[in-house]
Amino acid sequence: MFNYELEHILSFVGKGGGTPEAIGALPDGLRVNFQNIGGEVTGPRIRGKVRPTGGDWVTVRKDGVAILDARITLETDDHALILVTYPGIVDFGLDGYERFQRGELPPVARIRTSPRFFTSHPEYVWLNRLHCLGIGEYTPAARTASYEVYAVR
Amino acid sequence: MFNYELEHILSFVGKGGGTPEAIGALPDGLRVNFQNIGGEVTGPRIRGKVRPTGGDWVTVRKDGVAILDARITLETDDHALILVTYPGIVDFGLDGYERFQRGELPPVARIRTSPRFFTSHPEYVWLNRLHCLGIGEYTPAARTASYEVYAVR
Amino acid sequence: MFNYELEHILSFVGKGGGTPEAIGALPDGLRVNFQNIGGEVTGPRIRGKVRPTGGDWVTVRKDGVAILDARITLETDDHALILVTYPGIVDFGLDGYERFQRGELPPVARIRTSPRFFTSHPEYVWLNRLHCLGIGEYTPAARTASYEVYAVR
Amino acid sequence: MFNYELEHILSFVGKGGGTPEAIGALPDGLRVNFQNIGGEVTGPRIRGKVRPTGGDWVTVRKDGVAILDARITLETDDHALILVTYPGIVDFGLDGYERFQRGELPPVARIRTSPRFFTSHPEYVWLNRLHCLGIGEYTPAARTASYEVYAVR
Repeated sequence: MFNYELEHILSFVGKGGGTPEAIGALPDGLRVNFQNIGGEVTGPRIRGKVRPTGGDWVTVRKDGVAILDARITLETDDHALILVTYPGIVDFGLDGYERFQRGELPPVARIRTSPRFFTSHPEYVWLNRLHCLGIGEYTPAARTASYEVYAVR
Repeated sequence: MFNYELEHILSFVGKGGGTPEAIGALPDGLRVNFQNIGGEVTGPRIRGKVRPTGGDWVTVRKDGVAILDARITLETDDHALILVTYPGIVDFGLDGYERFQRGELPPVARIRTSPRFFTSHPEYVWLNRLHCLGIGEYTPAARTASYEVYAVR
Repeated sequence: MFNYELEHILSFVGKGGGTPEAIGALPDGLRVNFQNIGGEVTGPRIRGKVRPTGGDWVTVRKDGVAILDARITLETDDHALILVTYPGIVDFGLDGYERFQRGELPPVARIRTSPRFFTSHPEYVWLNRLHCLGIGEYTPAARTASYEVYAVR
Repeated sequence: MFNYELEHILSFVGKGGGTPEAIGALPDGLRVNFQNIGGEVTGPRIRGKVRPTGGDWVTVRKDGVAILDARITLETDDHALILVTYPGIVDFGLDGYERFQRGELPPVARIRTSPRFFTSHPEYVWLNRLHCLGIGEYTPAARTASYEVYAVR
């Protein structure tokens, strides 16, 4: 087996705002857009906030698997802007589509993502080189998604 | 030659808000995120507003060609939500990268896009079936992008 | 209304080979992969062949609309390589999903695409700057797709 | 910290064929297309081959980071077809762009990917629900890429 290591590089919390845009039932799944209104980011080499821009354009497939398509921007305490994009998956279970449609979300949903970072700030360009794994949880009641991001070495 | 027709189906205006997020010079181009704060949509079979969500995640390549990656949401007067996503291109000219970097945008920039629509509202599901062409203009001073969208029949 | 022009820049024919890979009925639609085995390209400023690589990864949605995701490579008579990628749409009609599943394809299907070109050959870098419209037809019996590509000026 | 587990679900080897299509130096990086001509897949619940279709459309950015965009198809011994798509990253080092351009590849390159699976075969639909991590190596001399794929639980 090939060796690899997961190194925790940062954690961030994103808070949703307004009512999510329920585009509704389409041929490829339920579409709903979650708008981001802020949050914070922390880590051994980074500290700052999540800007109140971007969001997550989600498709919940008929098999109960939600496909994420997110774009957010981090702003560090030393004023670097860092774009973060990520595909990801939430498995709401075999009846997840029907439950999501009825508004029955679990208290906590497990999120798995693959974030990619884009920045020109010299202090953070090391982020541009990483393939990452995001381990997260979404808490519908608090409209909050929390992620821990690992570099896959 | 194959026959085809372009049918104008709608026009929309999107207004940018706040300062665009200048992610800066990355290996694949200048990245800047434009946040959408509203607008309006009109057409023979549609009338409403552009919701103050989404935006355009732009990469200006070294050859002066900007690659667009936009997501906005329309809300019709009869309360349908319609997600619109589009890749697109703005050709800022051979020295467009350097000019963009210096903040020297032309008074008006020509935008060409391929919008795709996503809605579950029965009155508008015909939009889901279309391959479209978007002809637009961006006016930096007004922070406004205007588009006319044609169905390619 | 904004002015625009469509300029025919090239036409190409792609021929499919082998049996398409029928991935089958998934939650977001029928998936089938068409493998490209060759073809030719002609135009006022270009002449050559379609290399026997790449293909089209198609999803036929439940509403009968097929979403294309194609990658092919052109090789010009003066030995330039040009990568072409395109999303696109084929509307097989409201019962298109069921008919496609039964193998009942129409004799000719209308294809609409948005090709993008990638080349480093100085004679063809003008292609990199274009937003294009592809007007095509697929003939299942001949396993052949023909396209006329227009630059959207 | 959130709990998670990585479960090895399968390994596959893909073998490249022909000369890779060197599209060359574009504004966003060096583009080269690797064609897949076969391989094999093994795992606790799966055994079969990699079909001789698809490939990897790679962009090596100026910072020496290669961005992968791969599509391959698995065919199991019990005749299921499984489409696999993955973005991924290879970090060739700070001078990786220049070295890649000169054809100086390292003997072995570390690949990190995020595979997604698509199949309709009842025995394998569990794969559709997974967010995965791919740990791999590319050996240029052998034109072979080997991957171990983990489900991120």
